[in-house]
Amino acid sequence: MNVAMISKNLGILLLVEAASMLPSLLVALIYNQNDVSAFIITILLLMFTGFIMYKIPARNKNLYTRDGFAIVSLGWILVSLFGALPFLISGAIPSYVDAVFETVSGFTTTGSTILREIESLPRGILFWRSFTNWIGGMGVLVMMLAVLPAAGANTLQIMKAESPGPDPGKLVPRIGQSAKILYFMYTTLTSVQIILLLAGGMPLYDSLIHTFSTAGTGGFSNMNTSVGAYNNVYYEIIIGVFMFVFGVNFTLYYQALKGDVKSIFKDEEFRFYMFTAAGAILLITLDIWGPNFNTFWESLRHAFFQVSTIMTTTGFSSTNFDLWPVFSKTILVILMFIGASAGSTAGGIKCIRFLLLFKTVKREVRRILHPRSVYTVKYGGKTVNSDVLSGVMNYFFISIILFAISLLLVSLDGFDMVSNFTAVAASINNIGPGLGIVGPMGNFADYSSLSKIVFSITMLFGRLEIYPMLILFAPTFWKRVNI
Amino acid sequence: MNVAMISKNLGILLLVEAASMLPSLLVALIYNQNDVSAFIITILLLMFTGFIMYKIPARNKNLYTRDGFAIVSLGWILVSLFGALPFLISGAIPSYVDAVFETVSGFTTTGSTILREIESLPRGILFWRSFTNWIGGMGVLVMMLAVLPAAGANTLQIMKAESPGPDPGKLVPRIGQSAKILYFMYTTLTSVQIILLLAGGMPLYDSLIHTFSTAGTGGFSNMNTSVGAYNNVYYEIIIGVFMFVFGVNFTLYYQALKGDVKSIFKDEEFRFYMFTAAGAILLITLDIWGPNFNTFWESLRHAFFQVSTIMTTTGFSSTNFDLWPVFSKTILVILMFIGASAGSTAGGIKCIRFLLLFKTVKREVRRILHPRSVYTVKYGGKTVNSDVLSGVMNYFFISIILFAISLLLVSLDGFDMVSNFTAVAASINNIGPGLGIVGPMGNFADYSSLSKIVFSITMLFGRLEIYPMLILFAPTFWKRVNI
Repeated sequence: MNVAMISKNLGILLLVEAASMLPSLLVALIYNQNDVSAFIITILLLMFTGFIMYKIPARNKNLYTRDGFAIVSLGWILVSLFGALPFLISGAIPSYVDAVFETVSGFTTTGSTILREIESLPRGILFWRSFTNWIGGMGVLVMMLAVLPAAGANTLQIMKAESPGPDPGKLVPRIGQSAKILYFMYTTLTSVQIILLLAGGMPLYDSLIHTFSTAGTGGFSNMNTSVGAYNNVYYEIIIGVFMFVFGVNFTLYYQALKGDVKSIFKDEEFRFYMFTAAGAILLITLDIWGPNFNTFWESLRHAFFQVSTIMTTTGFSSTNFDLWPVFSKTILVILMFIGASAGSTAGGIKCIRFLLLFKTVKREVRRILHPRSVYTVKYGGKTVNSDVLSGVMNYFFISIILFAISLLLVSLDGFDMVSNFTAVAASINNIGPGLGIVGPMGNFADYSSLSKIVFSITMLFGRLEIYPMLILFAPTFWKRVNI
Repeated sequence: MNVAMISKNLGILLLVEAASMLPSLLVALIYNQNDVSAFIITILLLMFTGFIMYKIPARNKNLYTRDGFAIVSLGWILVSLFGALPFLISGAIPSYVDAVFETVSGFTTTGSTILREIESLPRGILFWRSFTNWIGGMGVLVMMLAVLPAAGANTLQIMKAESPGPDPGKLVPRIGQSAKILYFMYTTLTSVQIILLLAGGMPLYDSLIHTFSTAGTGGFSNMNTSVGAYNNVYYEIIIGVFMFVFGVNFTLYYQALKGDVKSIFKDEEFRFYMFTAAGAILLITLDIWGPNFNTFWESLRHAFFQVSTIMTTTGFSSTNFDLWPVFSKTILVILMFIGASAGSTAGGIKCIRFLLLFKTVKREVRRILHPRSVYTVKYGGKTVNSDVLSGVMNYFFISIILFAISLLLVSLDGFDMVSNFTAVAASINNIGPGLGIVGPMGNFADYSSLSKIVFSITMLFGRLEIYPMLILFAPTFWKRVNI
């Protein structure tokens, strides 16, 4: 492990985080509540620590795979530990564990909260809270790569570790360029949504907050009852549609930018994503029409918004879906695990992995029925390498094991099984609300500090797609430290 | 597909089922309640149908893989449909769907029941109910292969389809011989347990019933409150230990019979099985000591019995564990999925699959840390073929998908999520009771007929380890019907 180069890169990352806090400081200055000094202190701390870490001299400038993984996992942990300081210093969140939970939840675009009351918080603090969703959506290291030339090293390892997926989104050969294109598309879509919300009459501040949280598929709102607080169909449609938009693989938008719009609709994962969402919306609409809402349109409205928010792992809510029939709730819980597309800002296991797994099962059945024939799994017309398939299956298995371990640890708090189960599902898949005490009208405040730490680690596992976090727990990882 | 040969084999199977009903008829005659004619009618029907199916002339005597799978899946469905008749005809279970559920639950050694009241049923019927556990434990087709030379065909395909696992239990080259050895060991262990229960003062009838259900890891009792009805530590120890004994791979007993006793304790799966069980017993003992039981020994007693019954997927209960703390219940739910050993009578995903998956994950982590080295997965000192690993991963994935589909369908009934979740888990893993309305003091009676059919199919999927049932749903399977 190249400790000096890792430290250098982490130093840059902290400097970038300091810069990313400036808009929040500006908002704090405008509204002039009690949060200005919290941002100034944090920014100074970030600059000081970042500068020292950057200055560590490195003889060997090579980054290997494990270094890339280490930069990503340690980087995310560091930005969360520092990002929590404004909450703590301003007094908005008096406990550091709670503040870290909230920040991890923000950066991982989970959107779970330990806050019982949101609207009374300083506006700079709420802005930072939603801004973490926006930064985390595209990836904190992708941002670093987009704005700065990294410490002169092989940055492919960093990009690969932060956006793994079965098909990492390397758009053009040069990494810095890819990161810039991603952020360009991300910023453009974000701007369009802000304008559309403003056009519908939403105040500027609220538009920014909700757009940041939509774009990152995070789901932090500045209202206690989330998007439902406005009871406005237009907002729900804009936010609902944009959640789906940010759940699409950005590579498809890049192809569309280059003129190939058709490829979006030809994409197998996009079709699977749309088909699954449409099916879920239809079934839930029919299920809640009657027991929960009087008209078909009202049912469709809420089914659409909730499927969009859960499947894209955003976590806004337009209504308290914990009161829906068990069939609808079961569909939502299943959607929690499916998630949206790889290469998007969304979490979950992701459609492409399910697609590949279904194809593998189909091959297995064929193998039994016709043992002498040879079958391969194809995706997008190309044969999928067996290493990729085995990676996908491992991913699925580790997710379930991680799920079981987290579930066991948080069950020590003694809350009911549905709350625990959906709280862990919401954390690992970076969604936000679950059911029961962590339902759309609830929060994570009552869980113990141990559970909050478990949830934080689980969210990071989910966001970084397991491996970068997993290697931190491998004894051999710590053995090969060469300074 | 060789329809004639499939029919011939299924015919033999029905004749064997008729013979296997004779002990129950004898019990019915001894107690002379209103169930004698039900057995006589069913036996005659079985003989008649079996004879006709056996008499279909077959030109081609070859059995291919898909034929083996068809015999197994259709065979299990047929014996369940016929095995349900005594319940229906005697009036013990007035609905045929309920009777089929109970029979599938018996043969698959699940042990879930739709009966609200058990003790008032005729004794012949209750004997048959537990006897299905005993037959199903070792496999209905293994029994057929043990007692009769199959219709002169390649019976390896049948054996392979009924006892798949990553390592099918072919003890000696000749299939019929393997089946005989398996039944010899099975009968010996069964006899020892009966004698030990009798020695402790349990009535003969109760000893038979509980031993059959222990041996098959089924869990049908003749008491409404299961083994807990006796409140007898000796019975609980005998039954608890024997549940563990029947959850061990029978290949290990065969090796012990041949003089190699050490190999049991060297076996990786056996160690994993024992270690997991011991850990679970310890954690649960500490958790329930205080809130549920006053003394350490009382806590240990119930933790031991419940871990044994759940992990071996038997489903007896010595106490209402639905009243235990959430931590203990979460452990039990996780154990439901792990299950016992491959090549045993128990269900669940099985320890060996988890072991292999953990090893695969370890290899994946090593591959990231040291990309240039080559790592293989080893089990018992031998390198595991990548086809076997991919089969295990597929198995895991399909289990989860099947789980989700079943959960969705039964959620239409509107019961709470914990009941639905554990009911499906108990069905797919062939356990029996779950939590909530299907808890140790509850039953499956209130679910709709649709749900009972879903549960029945899920139990068969679980018992036959997915593939034999899955191919019935593959369109290509039905296309190749050559008579």
